[in-house]
Amino acid sequence: MAFSERASRLKSSLIREILAAAQRPQVMSFAGGLPAEAMLPKVDWADMPTSMGQYGMSEGEPALREALAAEARALGVPCEASQVLVVSGSQQTLDLAAKLYIDKGTEILLEAPTYLAALQIFQLFGADCITVPLEADGPDLSKLRSRLEQHKPAFIYLIPTFQNPSAVRYSEAKRDAVAALLDEFGVTLIEDEPYRELTFDGGSATPIVSRLRKSSWIYTGTVSKTLLPGLRVGYLIASPDLFPHLLKLKQSADLHTNRVGQWQALQWIGSEKYQQHLSELRDFYRVRRDAFESALQTHFSDLADWQVPQGGLFFWLALKQPLDTRTLMQAALAADVAFMPGEPFFPEPDEHHGHLRLNFSHIDPQRLDEGLKRLAAVVRQARATDAA
Amino acid sequence: MAFSERASRLKSSLIREILAAAQRPQVMSFAGGLPAEAMLPKVDWADMPTSMGQYGMSEGEPALREALAAEARALGVPCEASQVLVVSGSQQTLDLAAKLYIDKGTEILLEAPTYLAALQIFQLFGADCITVPLEADGPDLSKLRSRLEQHKPAFIYLIPTFQNPSAVRYSEAKRDAVAALLDEFGVTLIEDEPYRELTFDGGSATPIVSRLRKSSWIYTGTVSKTLLPGLRVGYLIASPDLFPHLLKLKQSADLHTNRVGQWQALQWIGSEKYQQHLSELRDFYRVRRDAFESALQTHFSDLADWQVPQGGLFFWLALKQPLDTRTLMQAALAADVAFMPGEPFFPEPDEHHGHLRLNFSHIDPQRLDEGLKRLAAVVRQARATDAA
Repeated sequence: MAFSERASRLKSSLIREILAAAQRPQVMSFAGGLPAEAMLPKVDWADMPTSMGQYGMSEGEPALREALAAEARALGVPCEASQVLVVSGSQQTLDLAAKLYIDKGTEILLEAPTYLAALQIFQLFGADCITVPLEADGPDLSKLRSRLEQHKPAFIYLIPTFQNPSAVRYSEAKRDAVAALLDEFGVTLIEDEPYRELTFDGGSATPIVSRLRKSSWIYTGTVSKTLLPGLRVGYLIASPDLFPHLLKLKQSADLHTNRVGQWQALQWIGSEKYQQHLSELRDFYRVRRDAFESALQTHFSDLADWQVPQGGLFFWLALKQPLDTRTLMQAALAADVAFMPGEPFFPEPDEHHGHLRLNFSHIDPQRLDEGLKRLAAVVRQARATDAA
Repeated sequence: MAFSERASRLKSSLIREILAAAQRPQVMSFAGGLPAEAMLPKVDWADMPTSMGQYGMSEGEPALREALAAEARALGVPCEASQVLVVSGSQQTLDLAAKLYIDKGTEILLEAPTYLAALQIFQLFGADCITVPLEADGPDLSKLRSRLEQHKPAFIYLIPTFQNPSAVRYSEAKRDAVAALLDEFGVTLIEDEPYRELTFDGGSATPIVSRLRKSSWIYTGTVSKTLLPGLRVGYLIASPDLFPHLLKLKQSADLHTNRVGQWQALQWIGSEKYQQHLSELRDFYRVRRDAFESALQTHFSDLADWQVPQGGLFFWLALKQPLDTRTLMQAALAADVAFMPGEPFFPEPDEHHGHLRLNFSHIDPQRLDEGLKRLAAVVRQARATDAA
């Protein structure tokens, strides 16, 4: 069997295994990043024209591209509809970017921690992953500068608004500073914003791409966290120098994104009913976030430290006594609790023990307290064994 | 700007440009492979459960995988649902296969001519494309043997049933012979069958993958030619040794295929109404094929040779006096006619002048005769200029 060199880097996905285990109905899962079932909006298909069944354009539906560009401009991103590419979920943006930029040994710059499925596809293509540590308000700027002085990354990949997994939201000052550094060193920015609309305190700074003056950029978003992930409709907006390449890569990946989902997304983007839905979603998740925080205080205050997330879907816990959290998985699942170990969110997992990513949006509130109680018991048991 | 080495092979797509030009309403287009608008079935969405809006499994919807496996078994393909991967249109199968197999310089074996979008993605990943010529009933077997003796291709990619672009359908004997050769040399088969159901004479031999005894294989199909391409729902079925790798690649490409389209496809696959629709589709396209043949006889009998296609969507014309048909594009579009030049369907376009691919399914029958008349005039004019 002669596979590609690339295929030797195909890892068994820990996420897949955890999510599969978490399917069992008795499992209390803090593992995935799933929207709450109850908050999936009812959608209507009756008015969809038959023509949506025909082949479409690789760029995406023209009206949807216009609507997405208008939304992005309202956020401060200077763009035209011609820069918008509809993709099959924003995961596809990462696939297209990997193809455009990464050969074996290509250096790229990432936050530590970073989104694990981004890490997987970048590493699959052979990237050499340089990282910059995250602080509570964004990256460590002096470390970012030194990385840029010492390396020539093909791009930097950032999730500045309610980062997955850390929930960090970059401050205004750090957004400006990051943009200035990228312009200074001429580094392309890929800015991933799936969680922007899930803000619980009303605030969210404008995207970093809107602060760039020179560097190339790709901004990517999705309707998966706010409308329906099952539609698989995301988008990217790229600086004009990058767009034609990404379009060709999109065409060769899957011709175009499904038009049925695009049509449905268009019924919502920019509409009053979408604003209404987003507002309800924020209220709903804020209540869940608060309940989660309260249960965490009860069960984890002696075990871990964390920041209360102001948006997104996750708490990111740092254990006071670090251990390899991957070793907790089996005991947790035996207790019918699933969580996401923190190690796979780093390119060097063995150098970053002791974090847990806990999703607060999906769990049934009735089972929240029991779930965290059991998870805390698993951690306590492991500590005791460690100490023995 | 530091792109990947791969990106240097991103070609401007002739297809894209032709299809874009063909969008103008006055253009009579023989260029694309679009289903006839009138034959897109009316679909109903009222019964779709809300849960289809949630994230789904990378493998695809369990019920759809079962239905697709049952259909494939009925065709003679020995498989279980666990070997079925739902993909975002069968173009994605080619993307996943390219990732799994192709490094720069990897040898692969293709028909000449072959599907041009397959050629594009295989070449993008750096494949060294070896070809075997097609005859009226399948590949030249002695050339296939000698290629297999001289090369060690990572896989062979075949479209044995109503091939795009040539419309060739392999005979029973050649299917058996190809399978035996692949087993003898231990070469993996990727068998692409988008057109199987579009048969006009009722016949179609069983897939080649069902005749293999040892080699690994990927069989791929789609609902795009028979239901709705806008759903972007295709599938692959793989031998068990390949499936886990393809699944991981699928996950990193776009997490999973849209569930809305999967749900709709499931309403049709294996149903009586689908059989009824397919039967109507065959009748409709057979009439269009016959009308096209008749108009071709009128306008092209002195200019080209061709076989009458027994299925699929295309006529493949060989000009009696070969010339680079790409040079005809501008004159054709000036006359409001679009067609697909034959050269891009070969890895060495400059060695294969003189073919035209003409789609017969999409053109308005009222404009068919005028369209072919104008196209013939363009060819005649170019011949005259050539001779001068």
